Amino acid sequence: METTVADYLVKKLKLLGIKNVFGLPGDYNFNILDAIIKDDEITWINCTNELNSSCAADGYSRINGYGAVVTTYGVGELSAINGIAGAMAENVPVIHIAGVPKTSFIEKNIIVHHNFSNPNYFAFENAYKNVVETTAYLNFENAKKEIDRVFDIFVNEKKPVYIAIPIDVCEFLIDDDGFDKIEYKKSDEKNLNKVVSETISLIEKAKNPIIFFDYLCKRYKLQSEIKEFINKTNMKFGTLLMGKGIVDETNPNFIGVNGGSLSPFVQDEIKNSDLIITAGYLNADLNTGGFSAFQKEIDIEIRKNETIIKGKVYKNVLLQDVILKLNEKITKTFEKNNFKQIKKKINEKGAIKVDDLLPLIETVLDEGDIFTMETGLFSLSGSFLNLKNEMEYISQTLWGSIGWATPALFGAMMADKKRQHIMFTGEGAHQLTIQEMANFFEYDLKPVIFVLNNNGYTVERVLSKDPNDKFNNITNWNYLKLIEGFSNGKDYFSKTVSTLESFIKTIEEIKKLKGKKLCYIEIVTDKNDFGSLCNKFISNMKTFSSNL
Amino acid sequence: METTVADYLVKKLKLLGIKNVFGLPGDYNFNILDAIIKDDEITWINCTNELNSSCAADGYSRINGYGAVVTTYGVGELSAINGIAGAMAENVPVIHIAGVPKTSFIEKNIIVHHNFSNPNYFAFENAYKNVVETTAYLNFENAKKEIDRVFDIFVNEKKPVYIAIPIDVCEFLIDDDGFDKIEYKKSDEKNLNKVVSETISLIEKAKNPIIFFDYLCKRYKLQSEIKEFINKTNMKFGTLLMGKGIVDETNPNFIGVNGGSLSPFVQDEIKNSDLIITAGYLNADLNTGGFSAFQKEIDIEIRKNETIIKGKVYKNVLLQDVILKLNEKITKTFEKNNFKQIKKKINEKGAIKVDDLLPLIETVLDEGDIFTMETGLFSLSGSFLNLKNEMEYISQTLWGSIGWATPALFGAMMADKKRQHIMFTGEGAHQLTIQEMANFFEYDLKPVIFVLNNNGYTVERVLSKDPNDKFNNITNWNYLKLIEGFSNGKDYFSKTVSTLESFIKTIEEIKKLKGKKLCYIEIVTDKNDFGSLCNKFISNMKTFSSNL
Repeated sequence: METTVADYLVKKLKLLGIKNVFGLPGDYNFNILDAIIKDDEITWINCTNELNSSCAADGYSRINGYGAVVTTYGVGELSAINGIAGAMAENVPVIHIAGVPKTSFIEKNIIVHHNFSNPNYFAFENAYKNVVETTAYLNFENAKKEIDRVFDIFVNEKKPVYIAIPIDVCEFLIDDDGFDKIEYKKSDEKNLNKVVSETISLIEKAKNPIIFFDYLCKRYKLQSEIKEFINKTNMKFGTLLMGKGIVDETNPNFIGVNGGSLSPFVQDEIKNSDLIITAGYLNADLNTGGFSAFQKEIDIEIRKNETIIKGKVYKNVLLQDVILKLNEKITKTFEKNNFKQIKKKINEKGAIKVDDLLPLIETVLDEGDIFTMETGLFSLSGSFLNLKNEMEYISQTLWGSIGWATPALFGAMMADKKRQHIMFTGEGAHQLTIQEMANFFEYDLKPVIFVLNNNGYTVERVLSKDPNDKFNNITNWNYLKLIEGFSNGKDYFSKTVSTLESFIKTIEEIKKLKGKKLCYIEIVTDKNDFGSLCNKFISNMKTFSSNL
Repeated sequence: METTVADYLVKKLKLLGIKNVFGLPGDYNFNILDAIIKDDEITWINCTNELNSSCAADGYSRINGYGAVVTTYGVGELSAINGIAGAMAENVPVIHIAGVPKTSFIEKNIIVHHNFSNPNYFAFENAYKNVVETTAYLNFENAKKEIDRVFDIFVNEKKPVYIAIPIDVCEFLIDDDGFDKIEYKKSDEKNLNKVVSETISLIEKAKNPIIFFDYLCKRYKLQSEIKEFINKTNMKFGTLLMGKGIVDETNPNFIGVNGGSLSPFVQDEIKNSDLIITAGYLNADLNTGGFSAFQKEIDIEIRKNETIIKGKVYKNVLLQDVILKLNEKITKTFEKNNFKQIKKKINEKGAIKVDDLLPLIETVLDEGDIFTMETGLFSLSGSFLNLKNEMEYISQTLWGSIGWATPALFGAMMADKKRQHIMFTGEGAHQLTIQEMANFFEYDLKPVIFVLNNNGYTVERVLSKDPNDKFNNITNWNYLKLIEGFSNGKDYFSKTVSTLESFIKTIEEIKKLKGKKLCYIEIVTDKNDFGSLCNKFISNMKTFSSNL
């Protein structure tokens, strides 16, 4: 069937299950937006700025599987670039579509708004080439072929991609034949079989194997496959920090989140293990408690496109294929373990300390909830929250762009409105993107939001030479008043708490209101209360760094 | 004297008269910030996010001559890139300094936070190469030489430049010898003399010459040179839209702002002229009322690095040298003109119309004020505000990134706290960067801010196929409540006006409070009131585009 390039693109988005597209309008992207808004199966969502829209698409993708953002030429696309780079770092599939001026303007290099005085119509695509898996600049000849190529890479790599479309190319007619075909990468069968038989043979020989699932298992949505593997084998398992939320933490075989020396119990288990397996693991500072996660060799490392067994590399073997085939072939069953989540002591009186947050916040979590964690002082601790069954946990651990969480939560909620969402952020990070709060009210979303107000960039007070360095001070805002301003008359619940008594009382209220009203809680702690985990992490990083 | 690389850089910033540096802290830029905060002659300013910090540095530079922003690796620098690209488009000198991880991490390609899972330590510099005049990535060997090279380009081109510094390179000791030397570009003497004599000869022969000053005259701070030229010659003169504010609009030789067919009076003058001269002119859509500024050939075009006289190009002739030398050599005097600013009729009753804004806002302007104009529905009209003597007018006409004005105003005010600042923005644009409002209260600044609330992206309603396209709707906020939240108890004046009566009354209050309190005025107009200028511009653009 004949269809416009813009409509073809929308068909491809829908093919991947993308139901919401985030972004801002601009006169160079109207034709793309028109194609979206006329289609009942896909919804256009105006964000409050482009950075926020890219973070919203990232949050949406983490829950939905794929996300999309549309911006306008130059001004819009560049404002979104940090959010897209974050998705790149964390392997989150987000497609960025930018509307650009019409073809004749490009060909004649006309100086129009959102361009340089010395115009270069390819400058912004060139900037994007550094932060996405692939880019395409559509024209009348290449449109269909390039869209197909970009989507194939998008689906296989699950990383951000970028498409620029001139306004007149949007309206150009092409044949939609084959729009629903995706060229899937396949594992090398021989290598895959070898990897699986080798892995099974090592597991069968082992007395005390442990498997760690990490962030790529999230991206390839291997939740049920992991469950099946564990239920079949009763193998001890854990996650790294970025993998948190992909496994059932209430399963008695779950040993915990491996934060290196921040999680001594997990480290003891590793010490006593005779076979360490990782799946989709990333050896990055914040994912490993400062490069302290594995004090011995990983025996089997199942990576995205290859598996390494005892140092031997098997190329062209896909992570998801290995897990699927292991489930198919494995028969070995270990004795069931009986690990239990450690109940933390709840203090009840006095000022709130950072170390009080973990046990208190746990009390509002229910099965199936989705928890969004901002980067900051508390994000390391948050990795040790006891998750209930079927909960998901999302955070931007590696990229760590403060401000990500508020719009990412909005995107995640648009991806799944049925489940309850909880977010934790520091007030420093919250300031960067706070205007996205308006969209929770616009779309009638009811998250529970905790804002830790400790009067500055406290995680940076820990990191900088002097905790009192004035660049870590921030302006004081009245957050409850701001929420009132963004809500514009809509109903919600908000509260500031600074004592344990009032926090505990507020938690009881939240339990009642959860799902019925947006709850916004400002938690005040001392600016020099760093919590116990942060210092340990810093000391690990210093050791690592000085040895380098 | 031995000095650290960070201190050397700070010395260079101070050499250019940079007294405030904008940005956000991050663990990779602490060493740069430490060098700034320990120095009493330069102040570190925390902005509320990186995009805002780059716009603040842009606004600061437009008033001060040079601006600087410091961000952290990856997350910070990428969030600032749109603001820096805007400075590039508009030829505003802003230096962007990014702190990056230590050298050994780079050499060993370690995966640390704010990097990709497949790390590339040069990806962000590579992205920046597309939006700045030059970049440098410092190391122990090249630091001093590269800083000097970048600053030479910065000063000569007056365009953004980018420097990345690993944290350990910051602390490396170098000799500060010659830090105060800048290698200035020079005009080719022979060509310069030819240009000046040719120009003078053409002026002497002309009966009715007109000279138009544009944006580059602002960047090279030629205000007093222009004044001298006009006072000597009594030549008729005008500006383009981007040049607005560089000339004295109360001078009787001022014919007006040339917005092409949007300014028919200026067009008539051009028609009757026998010699058209431009200085620092840019032929871009929004600068020329949709490419309608000059319906005949420009006889003499004095550009940044060359002058074109009747089609003949004279290379390596600097704009500022031509103006200086013309002033030195010219003797011709024309009869004094007697142009007067046209007083606009003030309506006094009923709902506020967009066309009412111009005459009403004019009434609060005083000599020497600085006016900051956001991109949007009203920005074209704003170009026809009658400026008082010694007023400056800043706007991001070519780049047109909505949201720029709020942080740019903050930067401009930090550059000149003595003068009164007025800003006009639409509420759609204001939403993108609204959190920077907090810094006006933090630094006790007292601008007059007008926010046009017309319930959506009204300029885009004009531009899109259907004014009711839902992507031009935005969320409704209670702006007065938000300002209360950002102010956190500090004193200010705010008001929402929707009738002419209340607007006029409020203006009387502003006149009394101006300079004493921050004044924040929300002006409500109908979402389909586009004003009279916008449609004319669109029709010009359509004609231009369809002929291309």
